Amino acid sequence: MAIGVGVIGAGTVGGGVIKTLIANSESIAARAGVDVALTHVAELDAGRLGEFDLTGVQTGSDAEALIENPDVAVVCELIGGIEPAKSFILKALNAKKHVVTANKMLLAYHGPELCAAATANGVDLRYEAAVAGGIPIIKALREGLAANKIRSVYGILNGTCNYILSRMTYEGLEFDETLEQAIEKGFAETPPDLDIEGHDTAHKCQIIASLCYATEVDLDDVYVEGITKVTHADVAYALELGYVIKLLAIVRDVDGAIEARVHPALVPQEHLLAAVRNEFNAVYVQSDVADATLYYGRGAGRMPTASAVVADIVDIACRGHAPNAAPFVYGPRRPICDIGNVQGRYYLRLTAYDKPGVLGKVCTILGKNNVSIASCIQQEENKEGPVHVVMMTHETVESALRNALKDIDKLDVIYEPTHVLRVL
Amino acid sequence: MAIGVGVIGAGTVGGGVIKTLIANSESIAARAGVDVALTHVAELDAGRLGEFDLTGVQTGSDAEALIENPDVAVVCELIGGIEPAKSFILKALNAKKHVVTANKMLLAYHGPELCAAATANGVDLRYEAAVAGGIPIIKALREGLAANKIRSVYGILNGTCNYILSRMTYEGLEFDETLEQAIEKGFAETPPDLDIEGHDTAHKCQIIASLCYATEVDLDDVYVEGITKVTHADVAYALELGYVIKLLAIVRDVDGAIEARVHPALVPQEHLLAAVRNEFNAVYVQSDVADATLYYGRGAGRMPTASAVVADIVDIACRGHAPNAAPFVYGPRRPICDIGNVQGRYYLRLTAYDKPGVLGKVCTILGKNNVSIASCIQQEENKEGPVHVVMMTHETVESALRNALKDIDKLDVIYEPTHVLRVL
Repeated sequence: MAIGVGVIGAGTVGGGVIKTLIANSESIAARAGVDVALTHVAELDAGRLGEFDLTGVQTGSDAEALIENPDVAVVCELIGGIEPAKSFILKALNAKKHVVTANKMLLAYHGPELCAAATANGVDLRYEAAVAGGIPIIKALREGLAANKIRSVYGILNGTCNYILSRMTYEGLEFDETLEQAIEKGFAETPPDLDIEGHDTAHKCQIIASLCYATEVDLDDVYVEGITKVTHADVAYALELGYVIKLLAIVRDVDGAIEARVHPALVPQEHLLAAVRNEFNAVYVQSDVADATLYYGRGAGRMPTASAVVADIVDIACRGHAPNAAPFVYGPRRPICDIGNVQGRYYLRLTAYDKPGVLGKVCTILGKNNVSIASCIQQEENKEGPVHVVMMTHETVESALRNALKDIDKLDVIYEPTHVLRVL
Repeated sequence: MAIGVGVIGAGTVGGGVIKTLIANSESIAARAGVDVALTHVAELDAGRLGEFDLTGVQTGSDAEALIENPDVAVVCELIGGIEPAKSFILKALNAKKHVVTANKMLLAYHGPELCAAATANGVDLRYEAAVAGGIPIIKALREGLAANKIRSVYGILNGTCNYILSRMTYEGLEFDETLEQAIEKGFAETPPDLDIEGHDTAHKCQIIASLCYATEVDLDDVYVEGITKVTHADVAYALELGYVIKLLAIVRDVDGAIEARVHPALVPQEHLLAAVRNEFNAVYVQSDVADATLYYGRGAGRMPTASAVVADIVDIACRGHAPNAAPFVYGPRRPICDIGNVQGRYYLRLTAYDKPGVLGKVCTILGKNNVSIASCIQQEENKEGPVHVVMMTHETVESALRNALKDIDKLDVIYEPTHVLRVL
């Protein structure tokens, strides 16, 4: 017997799910051995439904009626945002319906509450589409690597940011130019702040951290820095030093504590993540049994996201009502690492007046703070004004570097605050 | 209640599974919400068991007794080879035990029979470890991409071959030298024929083809060519032309027919597969909904393979005995493409005497067969003997190229048979 699916929201992602369920139900049945049938669609804007062949599907604007309908076994929440999405999901779970959502922001803020409701009702809550779109990364972390303790995850999780940074790197453009073009082409949301300030990546980072360590991680625990301060000069210096700049979500287990941070980072050119260009996403995982694995694909867009939503529906259909098909259960809280305690290497771009002794002053302060320099590029003399001095540090504690920079940026030979990027 | 696991075979992979189940059962319970307990190990060589802490685990040499023991719900067959592995698996399935295996050769030869036995008994047969070791690629193809029609799969699936080709490419070594070193270091089996002749990759190719298209594909349907004829000269010319040579398993849907082939191929340097070096594996999938995805990791080795076996055990434990947790069901057979009908671009390395008119004669024959040349490198004059002429063709049908080469290799200016490689 077919499993009935109700889709709430027929926008970009919802429309992709509707198209996929209509076009591929036969191949899904052949490959997965289950019949999945779209039975209901709830959408406030009836005009959106015109592009689909919805013969035999009940359509309307009432999401609550869809949830209550006994033919609907799986409810897909694809309207996004916090409310009414959250109420719809809770209502569906309490009505003992399985729920599939792509709503990363909602999960990042209210994941534990929603999972608890799913557990209490003995139904499933799935969200493969919430992280990295068409890449089955939730499944890989949760099931494929079930045997593993996850040591670290490094993810390129925002297609807009990766597109902007790729164009800056390979086409020599400045941040503002590429952002404008990304908005024109419809790659970036307007306003693009959630993307370029790193918050979208932070939502996904939070979901991954919770999943890897089976614990609640608050969104506030995720350190966030976007890409708006990255200049073409940074990208070019990085390239010269053998790196490309990527916005990374980083999740690590540091002696039992959790590190969760989002910021641009210099990735060595020979690392696979450096080869992930344009709007593509990728997730690099290090774990104790499988060692390194990487997952790559399209992180956004109608159809890739639909692929993930429908995979969740099929999973629910395959799994049936197995009593131990438990949704996610959170274990005890774990300590969160402060960004100041992070250890790593750093890229510094100083902007200084080209006077004798500058390097000496800077290095003295770094040395006092136990920060040592691995390499240095000084821009050729610039008669018009200040020059860039780029330094790569050896491994250091971030707080020591920040202390040093407070003093360095006060030097009268320094023209503007030093730009710091972390190195993978 | 814990699910009881019996492991048959405590060699490389079996030992890894035993270690993982002992070391990580707590984190598995925390992350997956199920208790998985190693209860029995059957191993003929008792000396192998000394390295494990098997307190509370029943050990012995009798695999059949393990299968019959009512405490064992999941049987892991990790002895490899066809018999007695096949009999053990069938016995376990008929005793209504779930089975997990890493035995790619057995699956490639007897997959349909084993799956039918699993289905008939309402139990699961899982084999994540049979393809690409620690990469959860079976799960990705079967579940993660369940919504998709798979267009093509390009896999680097043999670590030994990729290690050899990588060293030839980046260290300038000849095939024989790298093979010897791989054997010395224990990377390659002795004899290494299954690896370097492409048969190991063909087993995996067959499993992937069956899985993607839900149909039986015979091992004989897979075209196989190994890497023994690839020379350092080929690798160097490929690099000059912007490619690296990889042994690929290729599975494609060509208008409903299935193409399944294993051979060395020139991969463009900017393709992600080109960045997969040394013993690592990767699988690049193109599908209709998710578009391109790639999965990367360690394709062999004790612990990565164990990661896959234990993931299968955890899946079975999570899924319980859901009545529709059907193992793989094969649909109708599909036509298989003949290698002669494959369309693609080709790399030709001719070895010819350096006489006037050689290129003209060769190009005339190619032209008659509708094969056109995209680019050409001629080695500098060699007074000692014949020189290499390397050509890249435009897209052509393989049979046309083969016809041309029959005539070309008969030319008296041609010193030895032309070496042909396909281009991705």
